[in-house]
Amino acid sequence: MADPIEFFFDFASPYSYLAAAQIEPLAARHGRSVEFKPILLGVAFKVSGQLPLVDVPLKGDYSRRDFERSARFAGVPFRMPSLFPMGTVNAARAMLWLQANDPSHATPFMHRAMRAYFTEDRNINEAAIIGEVAGTLGVDSARLVAGIQEPALKERLRAQVDSAVARGVFGAPYLFVDGEPFWGNDRLPHVERWLAQGPF
Amino acid sequence: MADPIEFFFDFASPYSYLAAAQIEPLAARHGRSVEFKPILLGVAFKVSGQLPLVDVPLKGDYSRRDFERSARFAGVPFRMPSLFPMGTVNAARAMLWLQANDPSHATPFMHRAMRAYFTEDRNINEAAIIGEVAGTLGVDSARLVAGIQEPALKERLRAQVDSAVARGVFGAPYLFVDGEPFWGNDRLPHVERWLAQGPF
Repeated sequence: MADPIEFFFDFASPYSYLAAAQIEPLAARHGRSVEFKPILLGVAFKVSGQLPLVDVPLKGDYSRRDFERSARFAGVPFRMPSLFPMGTVNAARAMLWLQANDPSHATPFMHRAMRAYFTEDRNINEAAIIGEVAGTLGVDSARLVAGIQEPALKERLRAQVDSAVARGVFGAPYLFVDGEPFWGNDRLPHVERWLAQGPF
Repeated sequence: MADPIEFFFDFASPYSYLAAAQIEPLAARHGRSVEFKPILLGVAFKVSGQLPLVDVPLKGDYSRRDFERSARFAGVPFRMPSLFPMGTVNAARAMLWLQANDPSHATPFMHRAMRAYFTEDRNINEAAIIGEVAGTLGVDSARLVAGIQEPALKERLRAQVDSAVARGVFGAPYLFVDGEPFWGNDRLPHVERWLAQGPF
């Protein structure tokens, strides 16, 4: 089987949410799996000197409209969260903890948490809500909530973010397919062609 | 016939060039025409506080790669110009002059000028090259080159840019279909769905 697709995302990124909802079936159509790698967009924005999208004059208003239209275009439920943008360090740590300690629940946790944020306006960076969302999947919530405070885990997230930025990741979702970078939900058609016919 | 599609663009915007090469057949499939409206991205960037794409750390390198891949994806010839980005006030004025004085040559001039810039590395903001490009279409080059210095024409371009920014245009290409805004070459699939089935 060919190498997995690397999928860098931020839990509070609307376009990450939309792409995450579509990438697995897309990858599977071409015999690929997906490695989901949470990062913190705030760090990447700092390096590249960008503002959060919704804070850019003119572009911010357009973006809110585009989030919703892009969701309808993709057929993915979406409701703009009241707290946006927001930091997602705890959600990202929870994902890393699950990938290390309870891997079969890591990707389902990601989907469920993003859905809770982007359709039910739940603050998925709060430990209590992380525990609750993971609990519905059968995860040992108490262990998870304790686990995300481990210094080694915190360090692993830092390293993952730094490594992503060092590889050029400045936004999310950001995918690598056989080393080729693709930024944005709107590049999934490029990804699909790349998977179907190789480099173009 | 339904209202024309408004297509705001900058002559030196790669994604404008790629979208301009595709929008007319797309519009025609749905019984629409296209009104091409040149603007100056530098002004819009000033209002929204953005840098030219290629000057943003990390994003700049990705963008250069994405221009070329997006061109191959669309099947449009592309070679990165050596002078990029660049101001396009003369090219934009030439387009307005043609639209007012020799309208049948305005859109062909736009396509030919963008192609000269994006495939032959020609500086299409130089009056001599504007005259030459327009001349190959049968335009009276001397009249055109003199015309782009008319104060009233300069004022009309300023007004067109200001009006675009007032309507929220912060980048290019930027399209309006029945009042709905679409930013970017990568939103053409949204435009096509909107034309096919109406608001979604």
